[in-house]
Amino acid sequence: MLGESEVRDKCGIVGIYSQDKKTGVASQIYYALYALQHRGQESAGISTFNGNDILTHRGMGLVCDVFNPEKLEELKGNVGIGHVRYSTTGESRIENSQPFWSEFQGGKIAIAHNGDIINSMELREELEEEGHNFVSTTDSEVICHLLSREYDEKPNMIYSIKRVSEQLVGSYSLVVLLNQDLYVVRDPVGIKPLAFARKGSTQIVASETVAFDVIGAEHVRDVQPGEILHLNRGKSYWVANAPNTRRAHCMFEYVYFARPDSVIDGRNVYRVRLNIGEALYREHPANADVVVPVPDSSIPAAIGYSRASGIPYGEGLIKNRYVGRTFIMPTQEERETAVKLKMNPIRSELEGKRIVLIDDSIVRGTTSRALIDIIRDAGAEEIHLRIGCPPIKSPCYYGIAMATKKELIASTRNVEEIRRIIGVDSLGYLSIESLVECIGIKKGFLCTGCLDGDYPTPLPSDISEYEAMRSCSR
Amino acid sequence: MLGESEVRDKCGIVGIYSQDKKTGVASQIYYALYALQHRGQESAGISTFNGNDILTHRGMGLVCDVFNPEKLEELKGNVGIGHVRYSTTGESRIENSQPFWSEFQGGKIAIAHNGDIINSMELREELEEEGHNFVSTTDSEVICHLLSREYDEKPNMIYSIKRVSEQLVGSYSLVVLLNQDLYVVRDPVGIKPLAFARKGSTQIVASETVAFDVIGAEHVRDVQPGEILHLNRGKSYWVANAPNTRRAHCMFEYVYFARPDSVIDGRNVYRVRLNIGEALYREHPANADVVVPVPDSSIPAAIGYSRASGIPYGEGLIKNRYVGRTFIMPTQEERETAVKLKMNPIRSELEGKRIVLIDDSIVRGTTSRALIDIIRDAGAEEIHLRIGCPPIKSPCYYGIAMATKKELIASTRNVEEIRRIIGVDSLGYLSIESLVECIGIKKGFLCTGCLDGDYPTPLPSDISEYEAMRSCSR
Amino acid sequence: MLGESEVRDKCGIVGIYSQDKKTGVASQIYYALYALQHRGQESAGISTFNGNDILTHRGMGLVCDVFNPEKLEELKGNVGIGHVRYSTTGESRIENSQPFWSEFQGGKIAIAHNGDIINSMELREELEEEGHNFVSTTDSEVICHLLSREYDEKPNMIYSIKRVSEQLVGSYSLVVLLNQDLYVVRDPVGIKPLAFARKGSTQIVASETVAFDVIGAEHVRDVQPGEILHLNRGKSYWVANAPNTRRAHCMFEYVYFARPDSVIDGRNVYRVRLNIGEALYREHPANADVVVPVPDSSIPAAIGYSRASGIPYGEGLIKNRYVGRTFIMPTQEERETAVKLKMNPIRSELEGKRIVLIDDSIVRGTTSRALIDIIRDAGAEEIHLRIGCPPIKSPCYYGIAMATKKELIASTRNVEEIRRIIGVDSLGYLSIESLVECIGIKKGFLCTGCLDGDYPTPLPSDISEYEAMRSCSR
Amino acid sequence: MLGESEVRDKCGIVGIYSQDKKTGVASQIYYALYALQHRGQESAGISTFNGNDILTHRGMGLVCDVFNPEKLEELKGNVGIGHVRYSTTGESRIENSQPFWSEFQGGKIAIAHNGDIINSMELREELEEEGHNFVSTTDSEVICHLLSREYDEKPNMIYSIKRVSEQLVGSYSLVVLLNQDLYVVRDPVGIKPLAFARKGSTQIVASETVAFDVIGAEHVRDVQPGEILHLNRGKSYWVANAPNTRRAHCMFEYVYFARPDSVIDGRNVYRVRLNIGEALYREHPANADVVVPVPDSSIPAAIGYSRASGIPYGEGLIKNRYVGRTFIMPTQEERETAVKLKMNPIRSELEGKRIVLIDDSIVRGTTSRALIDIIRDAGAEEIHLRIGCPPIKSPCYYGIAMATKKELIASTRNVEEIRRIIGVDSLGYLSIESLVECIGIKKGFLCTGCLDGDYPTPLPSDISEYEAMRSCSR
Repeated sequence: MLGESEVRDKCGIVGIYSQDKKTGVASQIYYALYALQHRGQESAGISTFNGNDILTHRGMGLVCDVFNPEKLEELKGNVGIGHVRYSTTGESRIENSQPFWSEFQGGKIAIAHNGDIINSMELREELEEEGHNFVSTTDSEVICHLLSREYDEKPNMIYSIKRVSEQLVGSYSLVVLLNQDLYVVRDPVGIKPLAFARKGSTQIVASETVAFDVIGAEHVRDVQPGEILHLNRGKSYWVANAPNTRRAHCMFEYVYFARPDSVIDGRNVYRVRLNIGEALYREHPANADVVVPVPDSSIPAAIGYSRASGIPYGEGLIKNRYVGRTFIMPTQEERETAVKLKMNPIRSELEGKRIVLIDDSIVRGTTSRALIDIIRDAGAEEIHLRIGCPPIKSPCYYGIAMATKKELIASTRNVEEIRRIIGVDSLGYLSIESLVECIGIKKGFLCTGCLDGDYPTPLPSDISEYEAMRSCSR
Repeated sequence: MLGESEVRDKCGIVGIYSQDKKTGVASQIYYALYALQHRGQESAGISTFNGNDILTHRGMGLVCDVFNPEKLEELKGNVGIGHVRYSTTGESRIENSQPFWSEFQGGKIAIAHNGDIINSMELREELEEEGHNFVSTTDSEVICHLLSREYDEKPNMIYSIKRVSEQLVGSYSLVVLLNQDLYVVRDPVGIKPLAFARKGSTQIVASETVAFDVIGAEHVRDVQPGEILHLNRGKSYWVANAPNTRRAHCMFEYVYFARPDSVIDGRNVYRVRLNIGEALYREHPANADVVVPVPDSSIPAAIGYSRASGIPYGEGLIKNRYVGRTFIMPTQEERETAVKLKMNPIRSELEGKRIVLIDDSIVRGTTSRALIDIIRDAGAEEIHLRIGCPPIKSPCYYGIAMATKKELIASTRNVEEIRRIIGVDSLGYLSIESLVECIGIKKGFLCTGCLDGDYPTPLPSDISEYEAMRSCSR
Repeated sequence: MLGESEVRDKCGIVGIYSQDKKTGVASQIYYALYALQHRGQESAGISTFNGNDILTHRGMGLVCDVFNPEKLEELKGNVGIGHVRYSTTGESRIENSQPFWSEFQGGKIAIAHNGDIINSMELREELEEEGHNFVSTTDSEVICHLLSREYDEKPNMIYSIKRVSEQLVGSYSLVVLLNQDLYVVRDPVGIKPLAFARKGSTQIVASETVAFDVIGAEHVRDVQPGEILHLNRGKSYWVANAPNTRRAHCMFEYVYFARPDSVIDGRNVYRVRLNIGEALYREHPANADVVVPVPDSSIPAAIGYSRASGIPYGEGLIKNRYVGRTFIMPTQEERETAVKLKMNPIRSELEGKRIVLIDDSIVRGTTSRALIDIIRDAGAEEIHLRIGCPPIKSPCYYGIAMATKKELIASTRNVEEIRRIIGVDSLGYLSIESLVECIGIKKGFLCTGCLDGDYPTPLPSDISEYEAMRSCSR
Repeated sequence: MLGESEVRDKCGIVGIYSQDKKTGVASQIYYALYALQHRGQESAGISTFNGNDILTHRGMGLVCDVFNPEKLEELKGNVGIGHVRYSTTGESRIENSQPFWSEFQGGKIAIAHNGDIINSMELREELEEEGHNFVSTTDSEVICHLLSREYDEKPNMIYSIKRVSEQLVGSYSLVVLLNQDLYVVRDPVGIKPLAFARKGSTQIVASETVAFDVIGAEHVRDVQPGEILHLNRGKSYWVANAPNTRRAHCMFEYVYFARPDSVIDGRNVYRVRLNIGEALYREHPANADVVVPVPDSSIPAAIGYSRASGIPYGEGLIKNRYVGRTFIMPTQEERETAVKLKMNPIRSELEGKRIVLIDDSIVRGTTSRALIDIIRDAGAEEIHLRIGCPPIKSPCYYGIAMATKKELIASTRNVEEIRRIIGVDSLGYLSIESLVECIGIKKGFLCTGCLDGDYPTPLPSDISEYEAMRSCSR
């Protein structure tokens, strides 16, 4: 189970351009961010161009806490971008919230970024050597400096984006506001999602299609890997190394990250998760009385398993909706209380029963163990754990800061060892082949780096240093 | 569908007494309130007796916003009570938050109350005639004055509670802190839930058993209708008119209010809702492709319908977890946006399909109509709406301020008329008989006033005035 | 020197009634409170009658922090009252802020009070015996209950005020809002100030005339001791025991409390303080180079001393304007830092000079000693301390909670002993006779209880218990 | 009269280095900033080096609002800098608060700056042309980029400061924290004050000596114009063009800005102001009954006038201590109310009298006129206005954003014209010669640019554009 405390650095971005200069876009960006809130609860921000200047309002907390009607009213303009950032403990600072903005020779620039630049430290050092100063620890500031450096040499943002994309190694879905112009970029292999929609003469891009639903816009297509969109002109360009024969859509968006009501790169997320459940049954059937999901992300897979197996679906665990915001008193036993605060068993659905428990993934395994204890205490007779994702054996370098390699329970253990540690009667992981089939995108077009080490980009030269650095700088 | 904006005045209460004088109870009350958060998000408060004085901290907002470790640290004492209050718009004020406390001849008293006193205005006027002053508009202040009036005459709180219970008409689950003593009361017919637990030498009462789970206490039994518990002595007393041959447990706790992982008056809420789904299929079968719940409260009933019918269960609607806190810009079309912000359809589960949609209840019908529009727009071919509760024809006088009689869509319309207004292909309500059977408590022991007018207490003499007054004073 | 930490429980009140029903009075009350801010920085509040109901907004902090334009806008109505309360450490709570309001048989009542009721605990106990409940620890709530009790018996507020005034022992300047009616009362001997003004058809009462200046109203006269004004009718009544041959205007308002630009009971405060300085010179001349005030309250007296003596006036001490709001880190030596933060010497005006230092009063003497050290360190050759008030030998029971008797440096010591403790070359206090002459009100019309024990009302029966109780309840 | 609304961009800086690595300096910086609060109320900030990293906490508001004991506790380190910034309306933003910090090749750098760089826009454009990005609109960010650019070329901060000082035109007192090293710089002509003190092995620099008094440090000497101090080494260096035969200490620090208890460039501010009053009498005697200051800054000059003339000194105007924080309701006549809220006359000291009114300066003249109206309304018979500063005819380019040239009442009018506009019976300004004598620093060592156009540095090439730019960028 990927708990909120184990995975971070999901982010959500949105960009809106209205042809009608009188239409303010801030409130639509607000609603879109609100629909993307699951991708980041640490901070939120919006930048708009008001005809004269780029205005930015950012703050720590949920979209609804950061903005109010007065703030949105002040953010005038027919073009703008927005960002939500994931909550990590401690190191979060207002300086690291986005959109990042700065002023340079070419005017004002604001950037919102979803992804992770593997070589950002090298690029940053290079820029520092050239005399650049930094006021945050984000990749976005690095991209901002790179873009403005290119633009200063040749004031053509399409050209600048192409040049910068040659230097960036990693994942990036980007919206860039340069004065009145809105540019959209997706990395050459399309690791992070980015979709495009229209509502009348208004064009919108967002990390997930749920952002379109809430504002009544129509999803037109995805932004292509390597595509650069200049929304003001409605024109499309390509970064040098794209289109590519390799794509690498993150399989984890389908498994866990995205909302089930989103459609990503042509695949309905809910449908993919149903498929996963069905495939899990085919690969790992079980004799059981009830199929129980770990809510919320594993619900569709559990429904799929139930449909395929004919074993009844049941709600065996209730998730407290307020858990993310609660502190734990130092006098309590922390781990136990943390899981109990989050998940409560429904005894009547578990007691004396053989349970198929569906979870989306196992990272460290610690939360899974605590959860299994809770289900056992509620009287379950057998627990057959089925995981909707193959074993995670390697770290992610593209923005899912799940853990370092040695913390991953599957990096050095086989399935039987993991089963014993977690304490279940049987354990079955989805195979990579099945996962690929469930998603419906061919393997060469998916990123499965964390599963089989097949990373779509060069990796950091010194991985251990990279891991140390990442855990510091965030 | 009972949306958050349609039903109010659920509250949650908790009381804890530790035999060990050195054990502070504030943090346990905090966790218990956190588990009861679904019963009230408007305000939260805790009172403890610190050996000398009753200390109270109250605030507007969620439990996690009102308290922090420092505040809990200040609330010293081995005995205390807590309260969460439901959020209504506008009239909410810190003065109306609970626990309500005051000082009188007998010392300090603090009260937390779940319920609604029908004759509170008469009682208040009577007290005002006797010279009492009021600083809030809550029933709790009235009860507080009544208790202290009796106690002043004869300083015996058990006796005072008995005397006051003779005067109160309505529903009340109460925790009363009188200096170091903690008293617990449930009205003679037991309209509102109240359960009792132990953890070592610590005794706990709370509105729902989920509060016990989070602190690791063991649910022992329910507080009986008409029972008075003096926790310090571990003794039990009875109000004059109890035990009674009539009980009146609110059927709505099972249908909608309570968390599914709670056990209320001996009945597992999740099990009851499964039963409801199964009974709904027996009474109103449908030819359909998928059974879809309106999340979250209708999920178990939909699972039950699916199990009984063999029609696959599916997630067709995704609920945004942050909706309660979002404002709507004045420029948006409010109603449409409000529902879209709250519920998003999963097209792949709805398109071209015949849907059985399970909802827990219909109050005004306006939200249901908007939701049906959304499902139709997502391409559903047929919609067969099944409601896990009989038609609501009359108002509730015991704390569920759902609507006035004329606003209730079923007060003057038959099922076919409602079906046409809401716009579904078929509509089936659960019968009262089935509901009674599903809950598993005989009809004479349930309150079904809002369904058939069989109210368990005298009603206000002038109902229209009562309705007007209630809508003002809250 | 009476530092902010030594004297408390000054309060400021205001009441405004406009004949023109359309004229909102909240913003005028706001400005008036702002001018009275020196009388209380702990909390501020305003109540208005909006045609229907009494609305109240109260908060902790300065007037400018508690209110904003939106809050004032909400406080509609042509009649209202306001209050500022003095800041004490720790025990301050929102429940004790004013106006205090409650609802009773006669409707809504709101009260703002400046003064101290000596027998409030007896009255409170009596009320509690009768069954009254209390939610604060203020005298104002006691008065509120007494008034509503009388009014319930006979609904005539003038009569009620007369009856209550017979029970109250102590000081009180009161504004009472009973639904749409505004009543004003001053205790029979007029201990606390209260002045009356007009601006067009608007009538205003306030603790000090500076409140009139800021809103452009014309000071007409003082409210008389024992007078009851019903502003709506423009009529005047008298409490039973007034007019009186004894008056007891607090001499300390002239010496220290009031702003110098106020006129109290016909005497210009600035003029009184000039007189005090001149009289101090006559009674205690000194050979010196410069006359230095302890800012701000002693400035006029120092000017007077300089004028009478011909010794140049000089600023030898600069007061930091932000001192009231600063915390002291635990690592600092507290006392030293506290005084250094507050007062900084001007070396050039002190070094090598013989100083006449003018202070308004000495309470405990601790602050004076610290200040004398600072002046010595700055190089003063001689320090001749002159105090614009006779020795304070007894506590005040009327609202100036300066200290208990044993803490008063002059309660058991003669002037020479005090001189040695404080460490000055000479010390002279103003005589009572001179003070009376300087104020220009005959002795029988002043309260000099803290100087000579001639208190104008009965005292608490058990003074030590009273002192203990006061220091707890605040 | 220079009201708070008319002059801005005073700032206060402090830097502290303790030889003892274990001694935290944050709380001393806090107290020092608190003593410098009069130099800036808009924002406050502190940066310290904790052995590893530079930590910064900044916030809008007063020092006491921005910091609390927990924040200070977090700012660990034996070396740090602090800043207070002046409050202007509207354009103030957290991004423009100081210390400004950034990361570059050489590590972390933090800067606090008092002054105004005339050519900052040119320097900024030059840097932007070189590819630098900016995230604020402050001179401090420009200086930060210049310093890091030089340091990147040659990692020697003394050398870098020398090189940057050759490029800066304008006023600057600077503290620079480069990792663990603290550098202090004063511009070559010493426009802004900067003083040096010791307390044991701790070295301190601050804008005014009052910062030393509050922490018990001993003022050793001033930082010399053109001096660079490397506090860690206790070494002193000189910028290329210093020491200089020209100095240009701002005469306005003596006249208005500085606290009277400060000593600036060897001259006691209080003593200078006394001298000004005495000189004003010699140059512009008057037959009058009382000498009245406009509080607070004109008090010493009024004392001086009184001493020289023998005319009694009196307090005729009382300043409300809370004025800076109050809003004015839109329904009020703004200008009238604003002045009335700020200054209240003492009628008894003014009525029927011939007044000598002492003010420190006249900028636009609007506030003076309003004040004169108030004094006339209080019954003054004659008003003889004496100004402790020669006519201000030209703008200041060094940090006192008083007004543009055309707004200055004296830029195009002679004294008689000004007298008529302001409405006084006589008007006398101090002559430049007298001012120089009063300060006691020879004219060539003072900046008198705003008086006679003798600016100590080159001016902006296009002054009108400069004025427009300044009013925008702030």
